[in-house]
Amino acid sequence: MAEKHLIGQPVRRKEGAEKVTGRAQYADDLIFPGMLHGATVRSPVARGRIREIHFEGNIPWKEFTVVTAKDIPGKNCIALILEDQPCLADGAVNHAEEPVVLLAHADRYFLEEARRAVRLEIEALPGIFTLEESLEGKQVIWGEDNVFKSIGVEKGNVDQAWAQADFVVEGSYTTGAQEQLYIEPNAMVAVANAAEGVTVWGSLQCPYYIHKALVTLFGLPKEKVRVVQMETGGGFGGKEEYPSMIAAHAALLAWKSGRPVKLVYDRAEDMAATTKRHPSRTRHRTGVTRDGRLVAMEIDFTLDGGAYETLSPVVLSRGTIHAAGPYRCPNVRIRSRAVATNAPPHGAFRGFGAPQSVFALERHLDQVAARVGLSADELRRRNFVRAGDTLAVGQVVREKVEMERLMERAFKESGYHEKRQRFMQENQGRTVKKGIGFASFLHGAGFTGSGEEYLASVVGVEATPEGRVRVLAASTEMGQGTNTIFAQISADALGLPYDWIEIARPDTAEVPNSGPTVASRTCMIVGKLVESAALSLKKTLAEAGFPAGDSADDFARACGGYIAKFGALKTTSRYEAPAGLHWDEANYRGDAYGAYAWAVYVAEVSADMRTCEVRVDDFVAVQEVGKVIHPVLAAGQIEGGVAQGIGYALYEDVVWQEGRMVNSQMTNYIMPTSVDVPPIRVFFEEIPYAGGPAGAKGVGELPLDGTAPAIVNAIEHATGASITRIPVTPEVLMEALEGVVV
Amino acid sequence: MAEKHLIGQPVRRKEGAEKVTGRAQYADDLIFPGMLHGATVRSPVARGRIREIHFEGNIPWKEFTVVTAKDIPGKNCIALILEDQPCLADGAVNHAEEPVVLLAHADRYFLEEARRAVRLEIEALPGIFTLEESLEGKQVIWGEDNVFKSIGVEKGNVDQAWAQADFVVEGSYTTGAQEQLYIEPNAMVAVANAAEGVTVWGSLQCPYYIHKALVTLFGLPKEKVRVVQMETGGGFGGKEEYPSMIAAHAALLAWKSGRPVKLVYDRAEDMAATTKRHPSRTRHRTGVTRDGRLVAMEIDFTLDGGAYETLSPVVLSRGTIHAAGPYRCPNVRIRSRAVATNAPPHGAFRGFGAPQSVFALERHLDQVAARVGLSADELRRRNFVRAGDTLAVGQVVREKVEMERLMERAFKESGYHEKRQRFMQENQGRTVKKGIGFASFLHGAGFTGSGEEYLASVVGVEATPEGRVRVLAASTEMGQGTNTIFAQISADALGLPYDWIEIARPDTAEVPNSGPTVASRTCMIVGKLVESAALSLKKTLAEAGFPAGDSADDFARACGGYIAKFGALKTTSRYEAPAGLHWDEANYRGDAYGAYAWAVYVAEVSADMRTCEVRVDDFVAVQEVGKVIHPVLAAGQIEGGVAQGIGYALYEDVVWQEGRMVNSQMTNYIMPTSVDVPPIRVFFEEIPYAGGPAGAKGVGELPLDGTAPAIVNAIEHATGASITRIPVTPEVLMEALEGVVV
Repeated sequence: MAEKHLIGQPVRRKEGAEKVTGRAQYADDLIFPGMLHGATVRSPVARGRIREIHFEGNIPWKEFTVVTAKDIPGKNCIALILEDQPCLADGAVNHAEEPVVLLAHADRYFLEEARRAVRLEIEALPGIFTLEESLEGKQVIWGEDNVFKSIGVEKGNVDQAWAQADFVVEGSYTTGAQEQLYIEPNAMVAVANAAEGVTVWGSLQCPYYIHKALVTLFGLPKEKVRVVQMETGGGFGGKEEYPSMIAAHAALLAWKSGRPVKLVYDRAEDMAATTKRHPSRTRHRTGVTRDGRLVAMEIDFTLDGGAYETLSPVVLSRGTIHAAGPYRCPNVRIRSRAVATNAPPHGAFRGFGAPQSVFALERHLDQVAARVGLSADELRRRNFVRAGDTLAVGQVVREKVEMERLMERAFKESGYHEKRQRFMQENQGRTVKKGIGFASFLHGAGFTGSGEEYLASVVGVEATPEGRVRVLAASTEMGQGTNTIFAQISADALGLPYDWIEIARPDTAEVPNSGPTVASRTCMIVGKLVESAALSLKKTLAEAGFPAGDSADDFARACGGYIAKFGALKTTSRYEAPAGLHWDEANYRGDAYGAYAWAVYVAEVSADMRTCEVRVDDFVAVQEVGKVIHPVLAAGQIEGGVAQGIGYALYEDVVWQEGRMVNSQMTNYIMPTSVDVPPIRVFFEEIPYAGGPAGAKGVGELPLDGTAPAIVNAIEHATGASITRIPVTPEVLMEALEGVVV
Repeated sequence: MAEKHLIGQPVRRKEGAEKVTGRAQYADDLIFPGMLHGATVRSPVARGRIREIHFEGNIPWKEFTVVTAKDIPGKNCIALILEDQPCLADGAVNHAEEPVVLLAHADRYFLEEARRAVRLEIEALPGIFTLEESLEGKQVIWGEDNVFKSIGVEKGNVDQAWAQADFVVEGSYTTGAQEQLYIEPNAMVAVANAAEGVTVWGSLQCPYYIHKALVTLFGLPKEKVRVVQMETGGGFGGKEEYPSMIAAHAALLAWKSGRPVKLVYDRAEDMAATTKRHPSRTRHRTGVTRDGRLVAMEIDFTLDGGAYETLSPVVLSRGTIHAAGPYRCPNVRIRSRAVATNAPPHGAFRGFGAPQSVFALERHLDQVAARVGLSADELRRRNFVRAGDTLAVGQVVREKVEMERLMERAFKESGYHEKRQRFMQENQGRTVKKGIGFASFLHGAGFTGSGEEYLASVVGVEATPEGRVRVLAASTEMGQGTNTIFAQISADALGLPYDWIEIARPDTAEVPNSGPTVASRTCMIVGKLVESAALSLKKTLAEAGFPAGDSADDFARACGGYIAKFGALKTTSRYEAPAGLHWDEANYRGDAYGAYAWAVYVAEVSADMRTCEVRVDDFVAVQEVGKVIHPVLAAGQIEGGVAQGIGYALYEDVVWQEGRMVNSQMTNYIMPTSVDVPPIRVFFEEIPYAGGPAGAKGVGELPLDGTAPAIVNAIEHATGASITRIPVTPEVLMEALEGVVV
């Protein structure tokens, strides 16, 4: 008998048994015959001209495969959006840790000795290390003006709106870089030769991104390049674009040596050399009436993109669109830009620009409320967007939105109002002071604007004569639950037991391009395609005279009959934009996302006024993400996102020296551990979204957006310190407290 | 500058650095994407009819790949000599541990549970478990008479010769099975599908044996089958034929599952299921004159071959030819046969039949000497073969032979004569008695008779434009030094430094068939081909107008010039029988081997008369193996062979119950450890052999032949017990002592 209604149930994680029994294969588990290990020689300076490469030391260099830019068969770039990032620096280096030389050898320890014996003779040039310097433009390091991309959003008439404002409140907010810190560092294994082409197996989020990069790099036809995802121990955006670089390096070494090559980063290399969250600066100027209506928002948002463009334009885009939050201010102007510095390129990280701009907005609105004399919640309540209202980009919110209800629930679950009052009284004279604060925010799911239409993702579903079903998609499982929810969705669509469904391993030789596993799109966009491909399988059976019936056994019989008569049974589904969605890229206006998730987060903190240490004591996360497909996995997404948000808010401080991360170890780059993370209490409101599978929306990025501002708002409540930058390390709090009467 | 005269020097082991740094890859090191593990379900009974196979237990059998005989695409046999051994039992089983069902699963622990849940319903039939029963022929389990092969050797006229004898001495001697106990158990990894064919990587001695077996099993063209040797942790003959079975099993599982499959035996499975040394019985009837001249030898030699023929005919052949030893008796009759029992097939093991027949002969000659009233050494001395004499098969010994000199040296180094006397006196009244004994013997190198001609082995040598040379041969390195001596031989032939030589990994897709790595042939036969291929490379250069000159740099220049003009530079050398060698297979007469190694071994033992434990206190091994290519490796061969011979003589007792080995663990199958092995003092006499590379002969098997009889002769000296069987466990000695006055 078929189990029904798997959606909404905490079914066993599809790949769970493989993981707990240790038979799941990660890239570093692979060992091919004759395999070499690869290593990357990186620039020690942030900007300069490469004069010469010296192979020194007591090293038998002939035993080593050595690859430089001149060994690249095709184009020396990591093809992504622009082709400005070289695969190997050739002539010039533009950031510290930029790859210059690749080495391979069978002995990974000896290889490390050799790596240290390569001396890059580089003539150093002055670099730019802050976004302020980059904006000044006194020195140009990229393009004509250091600007990768700028965006302008205009809603209503901001210039005229200031007149209606009783108060104009200004503020400037900054956020630091953040490392993704997936538990499994980057790893790739490549086999590459002229006869067989290039195949890579790796830890990755986006097989088709790597495929595109390798096709360009090797100048090979598409069918000669194959990318296979191995079990992936976390990504968080950190395995969106940089794995193309690592795959390229492994493949170049394999191509030249004629041997399989494994390239695994250790933690220090992974942290120092690969992408991190873009540092940001956001300036707000907000007009508000005496009764708390927002009448004008002027937002200036800048991201530090690092040395090459990579994904900065799209990170900027999401950060910009989310900068004005879930509020219905009639007049909004947002000016934003991503600029170049001589840091390693910053890149995709869960939230993708939104955590930066949401931090700024939600911190700023607490200041606005204070100025008006309203409570922070009352100010929000008076401005929350409701169905029919428009967001900053002019998108009319068509779905039901209940921000106020989410807020009331969050306040109830956290005891917000009672604590807000009580802490103020109890804090008197105490060294450790308590505070509570919140943030309200939204997160759009899927690619921005016409992005999904442009991608035109495809998912396939195929069945065996026994009615066993295999889902074919390039969407990757990396711990977040892709395989499990795809199985739930397709099993329910077909009325089959959960274990009749197999999810194919993402392998560009076997699965269609369902797009990258990013942008909170896997459940809502790809899951919907899984659902429709499964339904169309059923339809195909019925139309061929083999109706699938109501039970799994009926389905199996139908599959058996169909396959006996026609051969393979497989259907695909291609993305089509829901009717009525419009996006005007030129004016940055229209339906930025098919749907949004909405949330209100409440953080309770203690601040030690002697040591200036802050800890989070309690956290309540209330969100509306449409139908919850898997309650345990969805809650896990929220818990993990909040934990990462706590790190972003309080601990995770990338220390830069001349564009180089100097604390690239887990002993000095501090992430929250289990003793630093409070109970995270997660509550879902479910308003099904017609465009998602069974009504689901995206859930992956959302929890990163509101965590930091809720915490910093709570710190202000506890300490009175109005902090405008994260992470709030003890040093930052100490400095902020100097102007505060304790 | 080229190093010269590498031959004779203890150069660094070619693959030594890879082994000590851990980067050498063994088959079990390989991990392919999506790889499954394989397991073998074996018959618990020794003989029977398979009624049914039950898949029981709480096992999700659908997750498993299950292979039975019906899944075999080609012929169900392990093609070797005959095709009588099935790859998977079909209908009948003929020995315990015979493979019936194969299973594969990603989880090797779960797989083991599943293996135990397969129940073979077998109707048991009576089996034969001793060679005596098999010879009786009351029950026939193989062919018409249980006889795999019989051989008759006739020299002179034995029937008439008895008249000249003053004494006729009879004796019967038996030897037990012995496990090869390579340190690395058997292991194979296979990738197999219709598109790519079959590739296996494994621990093995003979890539082309496996290649042949897989071609037959899958019915594939030769070029669709590829066999690659991984680093191999010992073989000793144990990886000569059985790896074909394991490769076949791994490949069948891979073929059916569509996934790479790894099949690794644990120690217990490896010991119980794979081949061991043939148990034997040898009967001697010897006519000798009063002055100690051997005038007639009648030898009846029987091997227990186990359930299928496999290599028994050739093991029998070598055992037969060596049965009459290095003596010039004018009248010799040898009748021998290998017979079937319902044990797992016995197979190749270092010495290949000779340790069995040499044990019998050398024990027997001590009895003959005693009867004549001569010392054991004087009897041998009077009968040693000399140049111009003929061996039992009529082979005229053309090379210089100095058995007497070897004996004198062995006696001198061991203090034989002095101890022989002194121990007799000192033993009086002692509980632990000392004894000293010796054995003198020979071992032929290379395949028997026309075997090498039939094999027609080929070796290739190729050079790069920089003068680096690569030796292409299927001969395997398994710890014994193939790679090192090939590099020494080719480097000296070309006048190149040792590290300019690379030995290609044996891979049937890359190297020609230089024959199996067995039969003490790798140095003498294949090494000679390496030498001649290298010399012909030099000749090719010279003939093309690029003389190689005298230095390595000259050679490199010549290679560069040649390759620029003509392209690849590669030569091959194919075996041709030395002029004057003749072999008459029908009458078993002629030149059985191109050359023999000769040896005298002296063992000194202590026997505890209470516990009946024996230990070897000192061991002197003097041998003439032609030119010693590498003194450390050659001595290592002797030391290892003697250690293995000590196990064979005293400790290694395979306990059988109904054809099943019941002590297949290293806790109850006792091999000598470092505390059981005395200093082994190795001395080489070198009489260069013109047919070997730089004068070398074979050295691999020799030390196994004479160790056990030397030890048991010493036991007789110490205790007076005339023991006729090995291993001499305490139980055996106790029984033998019963008739002896202590």
